[in-house]
Amino acid sequence: MNKNGITELLGIRYPIIQAGMIWASGWRLASAVSNAGGLGLIGSGSMYPEILREHIQKCKQATSKPFGVNVPLLYPDIDQIMDIILAENVPIVFTAAGNPSLWTQHLKLAGCKVVHVVSSVKFALKAQEAGVDAIVAEGFEAGGHNGREETTTMTLIPLVKKVIQIPLIAAGGIGSGPAMLAAMALGADGVQVGSRFVASPEASSHPSFKNAVIEAQQDSTELTLKELTPVRLLKNPFYEKVKALYAQGASTEELSLLLGKGRAKKGMFEGDLIEGELEIGQVAAQIEQILPAAEIVNEFIATYNRTLEKLKMFD
Amino acid sequence: MNKNGITELLGIRYPIIQAGMIWASGWRLASAVSNAGGLGLIGSGSMYPEILREHIQKCKQATSKPFGVNVPLLYPDIDQIMDIILAENVPIVFTAAGNPSLWTQHLKLAGCKVVHVVSSVKFALKAQEAGVDAIVAEGFEAGGHNGREETTTMTLIPLVKKVIQIPLIAAGGIGSGPAMLAAMALGADGVQVGSRFVASPEASSHPSFKNAVIEAQQDSTELTLKELTPVRLLKNPFYEKVKALYAQGASTEELSLLLGKGRAKKGMFEGDLIEGELEIGQVAAQIEQILPAAEIVNEFIATYNRTLEKLKMFD
Repeated sequence: MNKNGITELLGIRYPIIQAGMIWASGWRLASAVSNAGGLGLIGSGSMYPEILREHIQKCKQATSKPFGVNVPLLYPDIDQIMDIILAENVPIVFTAAGNPSLWTQHLKLAGCKVVHVVSSVKFALKAQEAGVDAIVAEGFEAGGHNGREETTTMTLIPLVKKVIQIPLIAAGGIGSGPAMLAAMALGADGVQVGSRFVASPEASSHPSFKNAVIEAQQDSTELTLKELTPVRLLKNPFYEKVKALYAQGASTEELSLLLGKGRAKKGMFEGDLIEGELEIGQVAAQIEQILPAAEIVNEFIATYNRTLEKLKMFD
Repeated sequence: MNKNGITELLGIRYPIIQAGMIWASGWRLASAVSNAGGLGLIGSGSMYPEILREHIQKCKQATSKPFGVNVPLLYPDIDQIMDIILAENVPIVFTAAGNPSLWTQHLKLAGCKVVHVVSSVKFALKAQEAGVDAIVAEGFEAGGHNGREETTTMTLIPLVKKVIQIPLIAAGGIGSGPAMLAAMALGADGVQVGSRFVASPEASSHPSFKNAVIEAQQDSTELTLKELTPVRLLKNPFYEKVKALYAQGASTEELSLLLGKGRAKKGMFEGDLIEGELEIGQVAAQIEQILPAAEIVNEFIATYNRTLEKLKMFD
């Protein structure tokens, strides 16, 4: 078996991590990916604490393999979320959107492995200093909330790899085995895959959103709302409203007012493709069908191996 | 020898193409790269026709290997440029920034190999229809003038590969052997490298600009001026002026007035780091020293091979 820093650290067969996406990554998706040899993550960002507890418990019933929870550190109920994670003995926590020094030692003392998501060299170093076990470096092409630096996966991974000593997971633009191989060539020990797993029956995303992901083309997404929190959106009528506000020279307050509350749930969970906020990566343009999570994992590995076999050295 | 569609087409040893960058890529750089086994390109975009002729003639004296000329098709003196290229028997022409159907057949009838640069699936298909021999697909992270779609190399290469039958060259974010390997894993047959070759003694760029490239960090560049022609700039006082205009809600005319004429020459050739326009890729953050072009080519191949050797299959 091909072992590396990530498979050893997380106790998984393949270094494929399913991103803990809001309104997509519940226990069904997480357990399916973990059962297939990757690492499934429950996305707590869209869950009330007691809903998260339910997902963790169901995930434990559905798989005997390691799984994790993704936690946005700016979450208002963060104390309650962390209490539940520790009470339920979740073995792995991915933290994002916040200061890693706040929770890392607390989680590690309780026996958790901690991985932190960054989009810059600066925050990779801060996370390493905070004592995390591994880092996810996420490029500009990634879906959802995203870094302000606009550094792409191709340029970010070597930069982060150079300055950290802990294992590195690449995210952004990785929707296939060849892209996983590319990330490993750049220096990653594993990959985090989001958009591709949205297009699975196990994702809790609304079927209409899944279909929109499959239909996405090269120019279907844009990173926008940089004045609030940058986010990569699928272009739909809500996105057009955002663009129209920008064209009028709108203030941050006006943008914030338009966004309002519940837009992401409306779009990705309730399937309102008109008024909802639809977060997805550029790689959606490569996604052509809805496949079970286990098949996605197997296809990654098969095409990774096939691509590697074909690459030749130069002399 | 590892042969593929690009090395066979262009008659070169390694599928490494040095980009034909304005104010950087004269006969010295092009011949040095060609002599090292890659393909050197003279960048005609910053040359008057008779200057281009001189560079072509000197390049022919300096190398017996294939080399090419990069031609922006929107160039005002385009007819004269093409006449010189054909009169001087330049074997390879890379076209960019314009409609490939205008010149491709004319060049091919004269025996030239023609490669066209695109940043989208749509224009890759148009170029293929126009009969070009190969395509360069350039990602968002690339320096200089750049596509409007903001598609990164990681996501663009597989999308273009899927729809074209001719050889494919990846550009954007490729400054090392591991990145070249990543591009090949994504489906490219070769790579075009710009920024890395700016940091060579053979580049005609001003030494002050070369030093600025070496000092660049992760957040040192930004793609801007999208209302004119999008361009990735190194952040300097001129860039700050552009940002200030945007903050005031400036019109396209005001932006155009600020840019004026000769900003690129002033910055990259004359070394005015205050008032000049400095075009460079995100990958500048990875560039740490000025090395002879032949050493850059050799380092690419050595680290490509070393990285490939270390990658293992999964079972």
